[in-house]
Amino acid sequence: MIGLDHVRAAAKRLRGVARRTPIITSATIDDMTGATVLLKAESFQRTGSFKFRGAYNRISSLPSDTKGVAAFSSGNHAQAVALAARLCGLPAVVVMPTDAPESKVAATSGYGAEVITYDRYTQDREALGRELAGDRGFVLVPPYDDQLVMAGQGTAGLELFDQAGELDVVVAPVSGGGVIAGCATAGTALRRGMRVIGVEPEAGDDTRRSLRAGRRVAIEVPRTIADGLQVSIPGELTFEVNRRLLEDVVTVSDQDLVQTIALLFERLKIVVEPSGAAGLAAVLGGSIDVAGRRVGVILSGGNVSAERFAKLIQGRQVIP
Amino acid sequence: MIGLDHVRAAAKRLRGVARRTPIITSATIDDMTGATVLLKAESFQRTGSFKFRGAYNRISSLPSDTKGVAAFSSGNHAQAVALAARLCGLPAVVVMPTDAPESKVAATSGYGAEVITYDRYTQDREALGRELAGDRGFVLVPPYDDQLVMAGQGTAGLELFDQAGELDVVVAPVSGGGVIAGCATAGTALRRGMRVIGVEPEAGDDTRRSLRAGRRVAIEVPRTIADGLQVSIPGELTFEVNRRLLEDVVTVSDQDLVQTIALLFERLKIVVEPSGAAGLAAVLGGSIDVAGRRVGVILSGGNVSAERFAKLIQGRQVIP
Repeated sequence: MIGLDHVRAAAKRLRGVARRTPIITSATIDDMTGATVLLKAESFQRTGSFKFRGAYNRISSLPSDTKGVAAFSSGNHAQAVALAARLCGLPAVVVMPTDAPESKVAATSGYGAEVITYDRYTQDREALGRELAGDRGFVLVPPYDDQLVMAGQGTAGLELFDQAGELDVVVAPVSGGGVIAGCATAGTALRRGMRVIGVEPEAGDDTRRSLRAGRRVAIEVPRTIADGLQVSIPGELTFEVNRRLLEDVVTVSDQDLVQTIALLFERLKIVVEPSGAAGLAAVLGGSIDVAGRRVGVILSGGNVSAERFAKLIQGRQVIP
Repeated sequence: MIGLDHVRAAAKRLRGVARRTPIITSATIDDMTGATVLLKAESFQRTGSFKFRGAYNRISSLPSDTKGVAAFSSGNHAQAVALAARLCGLPAVVVMPTDAPESKVAATSGYGAEVITYDRYTQDREALGRELAGDRGFVLVPPYDDQLVMAGQGTAGLELFDQAGELDVVVAPVSGGGVIAGCATAGTALRRGMRVIGVEPEAGDDTRRSLRAGRRVAIEVPRTIADGLQVSIPGELTFEVNRRLLEDVVTVSDQDLVQTIALLFERLKIVVEPSGAAGLAAVLGGSIDVAGRRVGVILSGGNVSAERFAKLIQGRQVIP
C-alpha cells in the first residue's frame, strides 16, 4: 500500500518537471449538474496525459547504474516513458502494436525512444517487453501496477486538492486503476470522508465487477472508443488500494463520451480524448450524486488526432 | 486617433470582468519557426473571443440613462454585446442573419439578448440595425469602428505585453481592424520599433489592398472559411490607426488555416476557430520574418462547433 507520503515525495520529484496543470471551471457545467465542478486538465500535462507523472516518478528514482528503460503501451504511457527517460538521460525502448495510431508512434519516437512494433493479434506484448528488457538489461516501467507509478499519478490529485480547496467528491477514469488509486490515497488522507468515485466505459467495467466480487475479475478486451481504458483486469497493487478507498465505480457509454468531448470542445475550448472525459461524462450523466457538492474531476488526457475527433463527432464509431 | 491612455483606461474598466487569458507556448512551434512564439489565447475569453473586451468597454461607458443597446453581427460580436449588456443591466437587441449558425444564435439568446433575424441576401443589416436602435432609443454598438471598442479590443495586446515581456513582433488577424489597431496603439507606444503585422485571408485582403493604395479599398464579400474575417472594407477609424502603425498585412489560405487549427488541436490541445488562427498560420507559413525574434500572436477566438471543425478537418470546405 502507498500512503500520502509517497504521493508527496513524488510531487517533490516532479516539481519543475511536470506541469502544474490548470483547474478549469464552467458556469454551464455547474448549471447542468447543480454542483461546483472543478476540472483538473491533465490534457495539458507534458506528453498530453497524467501518465507522465507516474513514468517520471518511477524513472527518476532508478539507481544511477540503470542502463535504460523498457515499456509496452499503445498510447499515453509510451509517450510518457519516452519523455521521462530522455529527461533522465536514459535510453528507452517501447513496444507498440503495428496498428497503433501513427501520431502516437511518431510522438514516442520524437521523444527519442526506440519503437519496436508487434502484432497485437499474434504476439504477447508483455512477454515481448520483458524479453527486450531482459536482453538489454533495461528496467521495465509498468503503466500502473507499481508503487512509484501510482504515487506519481496521484500527484494530479494532490495538486487538485491544493488548487481547488475543500472537495466533497473526486471523480477519475479507471483503466488499470493507477491515477485513481493515487488520488484516493492523497484525498482520503487529507480529508476524512472524501468520496472517491471511478468511471469505466460500459464495455470495460473490470474494476467495477472486481469491487463487487471482492477480487480481481478479468473480462474480454473491451470494445470502446475510450482507447486509454481498454484494460481487461485491474492491477494487483492498484486494486488493493482501490477496494479499500473507492466508494464506487460507475460506467459511461461511448455516446456519453462523444457528447462530453464535444461539450468540452465547444464550451470550454479544450481538447480532451474520449478516455479523458469519462469522469465528466459520469458527472453530467447523473449517475453520481453531486448536487450541491464541490466535485473535482480528473480530465486525464488529450491525445486524440483531429481526424479521429472528426469521425467521433460524426458518430462514426472509432474503436482502436 | 486613440492612444495608450485609452487602452489603459479600457483595461481598468475590464479588470475583474474580462478574463486575463493565458499565454501559451510550445516547443514544437518554436522549433518550426525558429522564433520564440507567445500565443495570447483569447479563445478562452468570455463569449469565446476578444470581442467581449471592446463591447464591454463601450457599453460600460454609456451614460446612465441609456435605454438599451443594439448590434448587428453574425458571430462573435453578437455574443459579446449580449453578455456585456447583461452585465451592465441593459437590454440588447441583435440583428443576425437567418442562416447564422444555430449555436451562435443560441449563445446570443442565452446571454439574454433579443435576436432579430434578417435575410442576408435581400436586407441591409446595417440599415436594419440603425432602424431598430432608432425605434427603441437604443445605442448601436459597432463591432470595431469606434474608439472605445478599439481601445477595449487593444487590451488583449496590453495584457500580452505585460505577460510576455519584451516582444519584437506582434501578429494579429485583421477583419475590420479593431483588435490590431488597439494592439498597435499600445505596442508601439510601449516599445519604439515594435513591428505590428496583420493577417487576412487570401480571399479577403481589403486592408492589405487599402494600405498599398493609401486609402480604404472595398472588395466583394470574401469567400473564406474564416467567418470572422469576412469584411469587405476596413473601418474608417481603424484604418486611420492601421495605416500609420502597421508594418504590413500578409495573407493566408484557407488550407493554411485548417492546418493551423489542427496543429493547435493536436499539439496544444486547444480549440481555435479558423479566423482566430490566422496570425499563427502566417507565422508558420513563413511569410513574416520572425527567425530569432520574440513574437506575440493573438489567437482571437474559439467559436467553432465540433461539427463544423470535423468538416473542416476532412477538407470539406465550409464557407458560411
